[in-house]
Amino acid sequence: MPGLMACRTEFGPSQPFKGAKITGSLHMTIQTAVLIETLTALGAEVRWCSCNIFSTQDHAAAAIARDSRAVFAWKGETLQEYWWCTERALDWGPGGGPDLIVDDGGDATLLIHEGVKAEEEYAKSGKLPDPSSTDNAEFQLVLTIIRDGLKTDPLKYTKMKERLVGVSEETTTGVKRLYQMQANGTLLFPAINVNDSVTKSKFDNLYGCRHSLPDGLMRATDVMIAGKVALVAGYGDVGKGCAAALKQAGARVIVTEIDPICALQATMEGLQVLTLEDVVSDVDIFVTTTGNKDIIMVDHMRKMKNNAIVCNIGHFDNEIDMLGLETFPGVKRITIKPQTDRWVFPDTNSGIIVLAEGRLMNLGCATGHPSFVMSCSFTNQVIAQLELWKEKSTGKYEKKVYVLPKHLDEKVAALHLGKLGARLTKLSKDQADYISVPVEGPYKPPHYRY
Amino acid sequence: MPGLMACRTEFGPSQPFKGAKITGSLHMTIQTAVLIETLTALGAEVRWCSCNIFSTQDHAAAAIARDSRAVFAWKGETLQEYWWCTERALDWGPGGGPDLIVDDGGDATLLIHEGVKAEEEYAKSGKLPDPSSTDNAEFQLVLTIIRDGLKTDPLKYTKMKERLVGVSEETTTGVKRLYQMQANGTLLFPAINVNDSVTKSKFDNLYGCRHSLPDGLMRATDVMIAGKVALVAGYGDVGKGCAAALKQAGARVIVTEIDPICALQATMEGLQVLTLEDVVSDVDIFVTTTGNKDIIMVDHMRKMKNNAIVCNIGHFDNEIDMLGLETFPGVKRITIKPQTDRWVFPDTNSGIIVLAEGRLMNLGCATGHPSFVMSCSFTNQVIAQLELWKEKSTGKYEKKVYVLPKHLDEKVAALHLGKLGARLTKLSKDQADYISVPVEGPYKPPHYRY
Amino acid sequence: MPGLMACRTEFGPSQPFKGAKITGSLHMTIQTAVLIETLTALGAEVRWCSCNIFSTQDHAAAAIARDSRAVFAWKGETLQEYWWCTERALDWGPGGGPDLIVDDGGDATLLIHEGVKAEEEYAKSGKLPDPSSTDNAEFQLVLTIIRDGLKTDPLKYTKMKERLVGVSEETTTGVKRLYQMQANGTLLFPAINVNDSVTKSKFDNLYGCRHSLPDGLMRATDVMIAGKVALVAGYGDVGKGCAAALKQAGARVIVTEIDPICALQATMEGLQVLTLEDVVSDVDIFVTTTGNKDIIMVDHMRKMKNNAIVCNIGHFDNEIDMLGLETFPGVKRITIKPQTDRWVFPDTNSGIIVLAEGRLMNLGCATGHPSFVMSCSFTNQVIAQLELWKEKSTGKYEKKVYVLPKHLDEKVAALHLGKLGARLTKLSKDQADYISVPVEGPYKPPHYRY
Amino acid sequence: MPGLMACRTEFGPSQPFKGAKITGSLHMTIQTAVLIETLTALGAEVRWCSCNIFSTQDHAAAAIARDSRAVFAWKGETLQEYWWCTERALDWGPGGGPDLIVDDGGDATLLIHEGVKAEEEYAKSGKLPDPSSTDNAEFQLVLTIIRDGLKTDPLKYTKMKERLVGVSEETTTGVKRLYQMQANGTLLFPAINVNDSVTKSKFDNLYGCRHSLPDGLMRATDVMIAGKVALVAGYGDVGKGCAAALKQAGARVIVTEIDPICALQATMEGLQVLTLEDVVSDVDIFVTTTGNKDIIMVDHMRKMKNNAIVCNIGHFDNEIDMLGLETFPGVKRITIKPQTDRWVFPDTNSGIIVLAEGRLMNLGCATGHPSFVMSCSFTNQVIAQLELWKEKSTGKYEKKVYVLPKHLDEKVAALHLGKLGARLTKLSKDQADYISVPVEGPYKPPHYRY
Repeated sequence: MPGLMACRTEFGPSQPFKGAKITGSLHMTIQTAVLIETLTALGAEVRWCSCNIFSTQDHAAAAIARDSRAVFAWKGETLQEYWWCTERALDWGPGGGPDLIVDDGGDATLLIHEGVKAEEEYAKSGKLPDPSSTDNAEFQLVLTIIRDGLKTDPLKYTKMKERLVGVSEETTTGVKRLYQMQANGTLLFPAINVNDSVTKSKFDNLYGCRHSLPDGLMRATDVMIAGKVALVAGYGDVGKGCAAALKQAGARVIVTEIDPICALQATMEGLQVLTLEDVVSDVDIFVTTTGNKDIIMVDHMRKMKNNAIVCNIGHFDNEIDMLGLETFPGVKRITIKPQTDRWVFPDTNSGIIVLAEGRLMNLGCATGHPSFVMSCSFTNQVIAQLELWKEKSTGKYEKKVYVLPKHLDEKVAALHLGKLGARLTKLSKDQADYISVPVEGPYKPPHYRY
Repeated sequence: MPGLMACRTEFGPSQPFKGAKITGSLHMTIQTAVLIETLTALGAEVRWCSCNIFSTQDHAAAAIARDSRAVFAWKGETLQEYWWCTERALDWGPGGGPDLIVDDGGDATLLIHEGVKAEEEYAKSGKLPDPSSTDNAEFQLVLTIIRDGLKTDPLKYTKMKERLVGVSEETTTGVKRLYQMQANGTLLFPAINVNDSVTKSKFDNLYGCRHSLPDGLMRATDVMIAGKVALVAGYGDVGKGCAAALKQAGARVIVTEIDPICALQATMEGLQVLTLEDVVSDVDIFVTTTGNKDIIMVDHMRKMKNNAIVCNIGHFDNEIDMLGLETFPGVKRITIKPQTDRWVFPDTNSGIIVLAEGRLMNLGCATGHPSFVMSCSFTNQVIAQLELWKEKSTGKYEKKVYVLPKHLDEKVAALHLGKLGARLTKLSKDQADYISVPVEGPYKPPHYRY
Repeated sequence: MPGLMACRTEFGPSQPFKGAKITGSLHMTIQTAVLIETLTALGAEVRWCSCNIFSTQDHAAAAIARDSRAVFAWKGETLQEYWWCTERALDWGPGGGPDLIVDDGGDATLLIHEGVKAEEEYAKSGKLPDPSSTDNAEFQLVLTIIRDGLKTDPLKYTKMKERLVGVSEETTTGVKRLYQMQANGTLLFPAINVNDSVTKSKFDNLYGCRHSLPDGLMRATDVMIAGKVALVAGYGDVGKGCAAALKQAGARVIVTEIDPICALQATMEGLQVLTLEDVVSDVDIFVTTTGNKDIIMVDHMRKMKNNAIVCNIGHFDNEIDMLGLETFPGVKRITIKPQTDRWVFPDTNSGIIVLAEGRLMNLGCATGHPSFVMSCSFTNQVIAQLELWKEKSTGKYEKKVYVLPKHLDEKVAALHLGKLGARLTKLSKDQADYISVPVEGPYKPPHYRY
Repeated sequence: MPGLMACRTEFGPSQPFKGAKITGSLHMTIQTAVLIETLTALGAEVRWCSCNIFSTQDHAAAAIARDSRAVFAWKGETLQEYWWCTERALDWGPGGGPDLIVDDGGDATLLIHEGVKAEEEYAKSGKLPDPSSTDNAEFQLVLTIIRDGLKTDPLKYTKMKERLVGVSEETTTGVKRLYQMQANGTLLFPAINVNDSVTKSKFDNLYGCRHSLPDGLMRATDVMIAGKVALVAGYGDVGKGCAAALKQAGARVIVTEIDPICALQATMEGLQVLTLEDVVSDVDIFVTTTGNKDIIMVDHMRKMKNNAIVCNIGHFDNEIDMLGLETFPGVKRITIKPQTDRWVFPDTNSGIIVLAEGRLMNLGCATGHPSFVMSCSFTNQVIAQLELWKEKSTGKYEKKVYVLPKHLDEKVAALHLGKLGARLTKLSKDQADYISVPVEGPYKPPHYRY
C-alpha cells in the first residue's frame, strides 16, 4: 500500500492527528488494518467497526484488537450484533463521541443522524422511537439501539454531533445519502466525499471489482467463467469493472441499464444491452452492481436455470430480493459452504446458488479489493481526514459535502506510480503556458472525466 | 446517423432555425454534409469551411456546393487558402456575419476575436496589424487577412460580433481557448462547450479514434500493427482510444503522460508509462494525442528507427515539430503517396514516415470518424445551436462558456440506442425515489465521470 | 518482408534457381512483387498471373511488367480474361511449360490437370471437351480454353506435366484439391503443401485476416464496427482472426460452425455459436470464412436488415450465393463505389451491401494481408521451391503432397523475430536432453498444434 | 461435467468395464471423484492415488474413500508417502496389478517400468537396486520402494506388466516419457496419448490455466495483477493460457521462449519476448510453464525485486530451482500460509514469495482446473479406457503410443456444447461432398491445428 506508507513517512513526524479521536466504520480487512495503523502513526486514537456483517477478516481484526482493544468486528455478525458494534465504535465514553468519522456506506453517520432526530423528538414530546413503526427489519434494530440509549443518556448523539469535526465517506451509496441530507438541510456536520476522487471512484470501483468479482466467483463456486452467459445489472464504474472481468475471462456478457449514456458505452464495448426479463432463463451468472434496490426479484429467480449463480457487488443486499427468497413458501436452503447457498424451489426442484447471502460477494466470498487499489482509496481517506482536522476551527468547511481538490487527487496517484515502474513526463514551462496549467498541476479542469 | 435523422423528424416541421444564418468551420466530410442538410432542414441558411487543410472529402464538399454554393473547402488547401476559406464562410455580405457559429478547433471564433481586436486598435491608434510582428507563419496569414479586410471595412468583425448570438464548439482545443477568453474577460459572445458533453468527449474522442487511428495507419502505410511497438503520447480520451486500438491489434503500447492520474489508468490497463526519451529508438509507431505542442521534436526523430511512423491525432500539427523537420539541414522529403511522406536525414541516410504532414492523420489519411460516432457529436451541435437560437433574446446565455444540461446529453445517447438493438431498463417510481432521481432522468450527478 | 530479404542474402550469391522457369498464380500485389524479385534474384525466370480477378494492384503489376514483360494480371479482370491470363502464365513457348509452379488456390494446377485429362481423352477418342457439359460458368471457360488449345497443340498440357518438377501451394482450398487428387491417384507431379506450415496457416490465415478484415470493411464502408452485431461463418484460422478483430473493435460476434471442436473454442472466447437462420435478421455484418459453398443464400439475404454488409474472406465467391442474388427477379444493383454494391430487393425495397462481388474482400476492398505476414507465407514458398528444385532428380519427392519439415518452418519464424526486437532463450544441452530435442531444434513433435 | 454425465447415460447400462480393474494416478480432486464414479458406474473396480503431493482435496478423497476404501491420497504428502501411495494403488493383491491405468504425469507407469527393469536385473544378476546410485532424492525413494518389494515378491511388477492391457496418459510430460520409451523400444504395454486430443491439450492446458493461474495467484497472495509486470516462461498451450489471463487482468506480460514459432506467436499478441536475464530485476510475477527443468535458478531469484512472486504451473517442481533455494547458505523460509512461503536471502534481506513449494500452483494454491474443462479431459480418458478395454484381445493396440481418432475427439466436444447453449450448423450432403468430408464428420485432416 504505497500511498499509506508514503503518508506515514511524510506526516508521521509532525503527528498531525495529535488529540484526534477517530471512529471508523469500514470493512475490517488487512488493508483497513494498515489504514488504522497509519492513522495511529499520525497521532490519532482510533475505534473501529466493520460496515458489513461478512466482510471482517478475523485475523486482521485480531491483530488490531491486540494492539488497541478498540475493534468491534467479526466475520458473520448478526444484524443486531452489527449495529451493536457500530454503536460501540462511536462511544468514546462520557466525553462524547469521536472527532472524526471514517465512513463506508454511511451507517455510522446514519446512526448519529437518527439518534439526534430521536433525541430532539424526545426532548420535545417525550416520545421514544418505536421500532415497530417500520417494516424494515434492519431499521428496527437501529431504532431499538437508539431507544435503549435514550433511556440512559438522552443527549448521547446530540453531544456526539456537537463534538464532530466531520466525516469522510467513500462509497457511492454513502455519498448519495450525504447529498440528500445536504439538500434537505439536515446534514449535521461537514462531509468530504472521498468516493468521487478520481483515484477512488475510477480505481476502487472499477479496477477493484475487475479483480475481486472473478476472485469471489472462483473461490465460492470454482465455476469456469469461459463459455458462460453473464448478466451485469448496472454499467457504472462497478459494473464496468465486472463486465470487463467477465468478458476477458471468456463469458458472453449482457448488461442491463437505465441510463442511456452508460448503455451506449456498453454497446461500444460489444456488450448486449437488454432487460433482465429478456434473458432471465439464459443466464448462468447474475451480478448486481446498481446501488439501487429490487433488481433481481424472487420471481426472476424462479425462472432461472438450475444452478444459476446470483450475487451482488453493488451495495446493500436489497439489490437481490433476499427477503422474497427466504420467505418463498417451501423454498429450501442448502449451505454448500459458508457464504455459498443453494436455494431450491419446491415446484421445479431446481435451484440457484446465492453468494454471501446477497451481500457484497467480493468481501463475503473472497478478500475484497487488493491492497494496491485500497491504498488509493485509503490514501484519499487519510488526506481527507487530515484536511478536516487541520481546518477544524477555521470554518472552511460548513455543514456541506465537499470533494477533495484535484491537486490532492493527483498526489494520491503520483504516490502509487513509482511502485509500478512508471515514469512521468514533465511539462516545460512553455508547454504548461500553452495549455494554461501550472507546471506542477493540477492538469485538468474540474469537469474532466478521465 | 440516427441522431441527426431523429432531429429532422422531431424539429423539421416547426422550422426552428427560420431566419438563422449559420457559419460552420468543421471538417467538410460526408458526415458534415448530413449535419449541414439537417441544419438546413430545420430552416437555417448555412455557409461552411473546413477546419483542417487536409480533411475535406471533395465529393462531400461538391455535393453540398451543388445545392448551396456556400462551401469553401477542398482537400489539400494551402494555409493561405485555408484562412481565405474561413473568412469567406464568415462573410454573409453587407448585413454582417452569421447569427451562429458551429466551430471545431475555434478558428472561426479566433478570426473574429483577432479581427475585433485589430479593429479596436485601428480605431484607437490607426495602426494596422503587422504580420511580421509574429514568428508563427499561420498567425501571419491571419493578420494579413485581417489587415486587408480592415482596408475595405474597418468594422467588419465588430459588426459580426454584434450580430452573433453564439458559438458551439466541439474540440478540446477550441474549448480550452474559450475558457481562456472567458477567464481573461475577452470572450465576445456566448459559447456552448459541446466537447464536454459525455456523448461527445467520451464517444467521438474515445471510440472515434479507436476506429480511425488504425484506419488511417492501414490506409497510409499498410503496416501490420501486430508485433510492433507503439508509443501513444497522452492518455486522455483520444489517447485511451488510440492505445486500446493498438493494443487490441497486437502492438505493445507505451504511453507518455504528464498527469499522474491518467498515467495510473494506463498502468492499470497493462500499458508501460515511460518518457519519450526512454524509448525513442525502440518504437515503430508514434502517435501524438496531447493537445499540447512540441511533443516529438526533430531531435527525437533523428534517433528513431529507420521507417518509424510518426503521426498526430491530437489537434494541431505543432504536436510534431514539423518546422524543425522541414528546416533540418539536408533533410530530404520523399512523397510516397499523398499524405504519406518519408523524410530522410542526411547523416544517417535513415528516414521516418510522417503522415498527413503532422496534421490529423485520421482525417488526412482516412475518412475521419465513422458516421455513428459523428452522429453523437453532431446531434450535440444541433441541440446546442437550437438552444442558443431559442434563447437569443432572453439573456439566458451571457458571454460565458456553458455545457449542455445532462438531460440533453442523455437524450443524445437515447437517440442512438435503438439502432444498436439495445433495450433500456425502466426505473420504477419506488426505485427512482430510493436513489433520488426522476424516473425519466437525468440519472447522474453533474460530477459523474462515466 | 524480412524473411524474403534474408533469403536473398543467404541464397542470392549461389543462384540456386539458375535454369528454373517458375510460373506463379498468386494475387499480384506489391508483396508478391517482392516475392517475384526474390525468385529472380535467386536465378529463376518467372511468369506470373493473379489468382483472383480483383486482387491485382495495378501499380505492382506494372512495376514487375516493366522489368520482365511476363505479368498477366490487372484489377477487375473478367473471368474469361482471368483464365486467359492463367494460360498465358503457364505458356513458356514451345519448350513446354514451367519447371515449378507457385500456386494459390490451385487454379494453375487445375488447368494443367484438366488439360491433361482432355488431351488423354482426345488421344483416345478424338473427343474435344464440351463446355456445355457443365452448369458451372467458370468451368465452361476452363474447358473452352483447353478445347481451343487442343486444336493447336494436342500435347500442350501433357508436355507441361512432364517437364514439371512440382508445385507449392499456399491455400487451404488448393491444398484440399491436392490431397483429393493424391487420394484419387490423379496427382500428376509432386506438391508441397505450404499452407500447413505453422508459419503460414497460423500467421497468414489468422493474423493476416485479423488485420485485413477490418481494413477492408473500413475502406469499403467506413462502418463503425463498435456496437454492431457481426456473424462470422466458420471458426477455422481465418474465422478466428476475423472474430478476434471484430470483437476487439467492439462488435458482438456470433459464430456459425459445423465442427464441434471449433465451436467449443468459440464459446471459450465468449462468442455465441448459433446457426445463420437463428439470427439472420439481427446481424449488421456477415463474414464468410468457411472454404465451403452455399453459406449465405439469397433467401438469407432477403431476410437481412436494410444495409447489412455481406462479405467473404474465405475463398471462392460461392460462399455467398452471388448467382442467386444476381438472378433474383427484380433485384437492383447500385454500385456505391468499385467493389461496394448495394443490392435492393424489389418487394421490400430494402437492400444489402455486398463487398468485392462476393470475392475476397480484403483483396478487393483493401490491400490484402500486410507485408510482414506475407513475408512469412512467401518465405515458405521460396523455401519449398528451393527444396523441389534441389531434389528435382533425386526422386525424394513422388507424386504426393508433402509438408515442409519442421526445422524449415522454425527457420521461417526465426527470420522474422529480429525485426520485432524479440530475443530467444537458448536451451542448454542438459535441458535439451531432458526434453529429448536437439539444442538447435526442431523443438516440437509433428502433431503439435501451436 | 456434462461429458462424464453423458458417458454414464450412454454406456452405463451395458457395463462395458465389467471385470476391469483400473488404477488411477491423478490429482485427487472433486472432478476426479466424478471420474472415478463414472468408471465405477460403467462397471470397473478402481484404486486411486494422487499424482502430486499437494493437489489432493481431502474432502474429495474422503468422499471416495467412504464408498470404496481404495483411495491413497491426502493434501501435503511427503515424497515418501507419495510413492507409498502410488505403490498401494497399483497393488491389487496376489492376482497381479490393474488391467488398466489412468495416468497423469506417468508416475504409475514409471514405477512399473522401473520395477520390471529391477526385477529383470535381479533375476539375471541377483543385484538389488541401489538408491544411493542416484543424486535425485525422489528417484532414491522409487528405488527404495522397488528394492523393498523385490524382497517379498521378485515378480511383482513383471506380473503387473503381463496383466496390463494399457495406460491412458493425459499430460505433456507423461506423453513425452511414453514416446521416449516407444523410441527406445522399452515400452511394456500399449498407451493412448490423451494429452494430444484437441479437446484435452487445447482446452485443459489453455483454457484451464487461463482460469486457474489467476485463481491460484489471488488465493495465495491477493496480489493485484493489474499494473504488474509478469513473466511467463514458455508459450505453449499452458503459457498461452497464462499470458492471456495475465494480460487481460491488466499486467504487462513478457514471454521467454526457445521455439521461434511460439515466440513469433507471442509477438503477434503484443507480448514482449525476451530472456529471463534481460528482465529478472523488473518482474513482479514469474510463472514457469515449460515442462523443462532449470528455468528459474537461485541466482535469478537473488536478483529479483523484493516480494516478487515465483510460481510453476508447468509440470515438475524442478522448473524452479527449489533445491538451490532451499540449500542457499543463510536463506530463511517464512511460511505466510500453507503453500505460500517467503524466502529471504541473507545478504540483501530481501525476499521472494514462492507458491506451492514450486509445484503446480493452481492445484496447490487453488482448486486446479474448473469442472467444465476437466470434463473434457476426463471424457477423453474414459473413452480411451473403453477403447483399450474393448480391444484388449484383438491385438489392435501394440506396445506403442496412440492418439484417439478424431471422430472421438469431436464427440467429446459435442457432448459439451449443449450445456453452453451452442447450436451447430449441419452440413448438407452437397457441401460435405464439396469439401470431401462425411456429413457427420470428422471434419478436419489429422494435421489440422485448431
